[in-house]
Amino acid sequence: MDMMRAIIHQYQHQRVTLVEAGATRHRSIFNGLKALAGDHPHSKLPTPTVVIIHDAVRPFVEEDVLVSVVTAAKDHGAAGAIRPLVSTVITPSADGCLDQSLDRAKHRASEMPQAFLFDVIYRAYRQCSDHDLEFGTECLHLALKYCHTKAKLVEGPPDLWKVTYRRDLYAMESIIKDKISQQVCVVMDTKEDAGCIGFLQGVLKKELEVKGTSVTLCPNGQDLQKIFLGECYNFVCINTTSADFHQITKLLDGLESRTPSLFYPVAVVSVHFLDSQNVSFSERMKELMEMKDFAKEVKERNIFLYGVLVCFTQDNLQQLHENVRQGASIITSLLKDRNAGLTGQLLIA
Amino acid sequence: MDMMRAIIHQYQHQRVTLVEAGATRHRSIFNGLKALAGDHPHSKLPTPTVVIIHDAVRPFVEEDVLVSVVTAAKDHGAAGAIRPLVSTVITPSADGCLDQSLDRAKHRASEMPQAFLFDVIYRAYRQCSDHDLEFGTECLHLALKYCHTKAKLVEGPPDLWKVTYRRDLYAMESIIKDKISQQVCVVMDTKEDAGCIGFLQGVLKKELEVKGTSVTLCPNGQDLQKIFLGECYNFVCINTTSADFHQITKLLDGLESRTPSLFYPVAVVSVHFLDSQNVSFSERMKELMEMKDFAKEVKERNIFLYGVLVCFTQDNLQQLHENVRQGASIITSLLKDRNAGLTGQLLIA
Repeated sequence: MDMMRAIIHQYQHQRVTLVEAGATRHRSIFNGLKALAGDHPHSKLPTPTVVIIHDAVRPFVEEDVLVSVVTAAKDHGAAGAIRPLVSTVITPSADGCLDQSLDRAKHRASEMPQAFLFDVIYRAYRQCSDHDLEFGTECLHLALKYCHTKAKLVEGPPDLWKVTYRRDLYAMESIIKDKISQQVCVVMDTKEDAGCIGFLQGVLKKELEVKGTSVTLCPNGQDLQKIFLGECYNFVCINTTSADFHQITKLLDGLESRTPSLFYPVAVVSVHFLDSQNVSFSERMKELMEMKDFAKEVKERNIFLYGVLVCFTQDNLQQLHENVRQGASIITSLLKDRNAGLTGQLLIA
Repeated sequence: MDMMRAIIHQYQHQRVTLVEAGATRHRSIFNGLKALAGDHPHSKLPTPTVVIIHDAVRPFVEEDVLVSVVTAAKDHGAAGAIRPLVSTVITPSADGCLDQSLDRAKHRASEMPQAFLFDVIYRAYRQCSDHDLEFGTECLHLALKYCHTKAKLVEGPPDLWKVTYRRDLYAMESIIKDKISQQVCVVMDTKEDAGCIGFLQGVLKKELEVKGTSVTLCPNGQDLQKIFLGECYNFVCINTTSADFHQITKLLDGLESRTPSLFYPVAVVSVHFLDSQNVSFSERMKELMEMKDFAKEVKERNIFLYGVLVCFTQDNLQQLHENVRQGASIITSLLKDRNAGLTGQLLIA
């Protein structure tokens, strides 16, 4: 309960009432319904017309499926998301042999969310037996059995699946990484977009867009606040005018002031250029090595900072273009993997 | 067919006969059975007593479950792997409402592999209707319907699941990365394990073993061939005596000669040390920058090469230990993520 309270506080949720879980799925749901019925001392919420029941282990529920089940519940008294079966379902006999196999096309997997008229589902739970509360798993079944309410079945998206095995945690992590990689903001310290900066922008935009990511270009002076209001978790800072971290500091301060707290780590790639005819490689490296300490500091605030150094000589355009292309490829790799162990590193293109 | 032939050739499989697929699952299986019965012109295999049927979309099948279904098939005529249901299965009515929900505890998901006495399953397929061949999905059902053979059901592991959705591809990728990260070989160019080398070995071994990885230490002179015979996909090369890539080259040549071809990319981390009181940082960097070209070359042979430089000064032991610890953490990050975009980079601890 303390952990849940801390999460609610951190993300500033206002309209949440916590209720203690029961020993089984149905007992927990019943406790929640009682609280909504006003049977709970700390309940602040009025009794609703429609109630949605969902599983925390199905974290990728979108608003449209919630709207679908609620609308259907208003018409039918109950509604639930379903999916086609992936494997054939069979009935074993007592001795562990095949008794019968069900026609896969005639059956569906019952998933979550489900929605009910509050009166229907609360009436069902108040009538149901101890055996139901102890061993039952299906709310739609209770509504049918005790209130004769035939739930409307709504086809849900595949992302509603139940996170059950270790492989589901892997899948979940990759889906989240995918989701937060959808938008990249490229911030420049100059209004100019000529020369290698313009070329890098072009290559980067192209490479990212191939991967289905939208790219926002944000030249110097443009208000970053609009970006922070959105759900952008990826920033590429192109530094041309100075070697220090002034621009990055400004960006990170902006990110910090964003409320509620950052939900996922933000990845920031700081891009620098080295004209190796005019500046010594070792001098530039030394300047940029300060990034390590800086990255360590911001990592505590859930920001992953990486550096990329693009080397060039003014008179070798082909080499420059090749290195810029390599820089773009390194940047996209960093943003895709968000490797916590490589923050503060300066990668060289 | 050409792609399959190429795979069989590349991995030097000897006892494989390819058969063209049919338009449906059951027609494809029937084609395979016909080939085993000697009805196929190019068949080289004798008709077996027991035949195993498996799905390519269930790539993580272990030998023990194959043994279980074959043993059970010998006794019962047919056997198949099953799993508990994750979601409740329901029957929809014609108007898309809930008709009935099945008791989850009384049903199972039928998975693969399945095994049959060849005579049983071939007889079932020869008798079954066009409707079965067109719309059926369950081989156990055919054995029951046409040969009255009640299959023995064998509990399978969760990794038998069917790779169906995009999230399953993510899960699969992570499971493979997990599998090939189980073993790390640490190669040294010296027999000494004193000083910072010994300390690095200790920290690395500890950090990797926490993650359930076994670590083999391989001092200079020890025969690498034994390692290559195993399934090791991770090498950490600790270089102390020279700055060049002599040791790495020897290692990579060994890897190359391994047959059959490497199935997954091999990750190699080349670790170097810099005593910054005695050697100039920029000189050392320049030497090691050659790694980029070298890495590009070996990447074409499915080897991912990364560099790690650990800096220290002889008189600051605390700093040295801190940097070595950081180096170990960078190495484990590199081996875990196997990021193809970061090969050839020199990371600094």
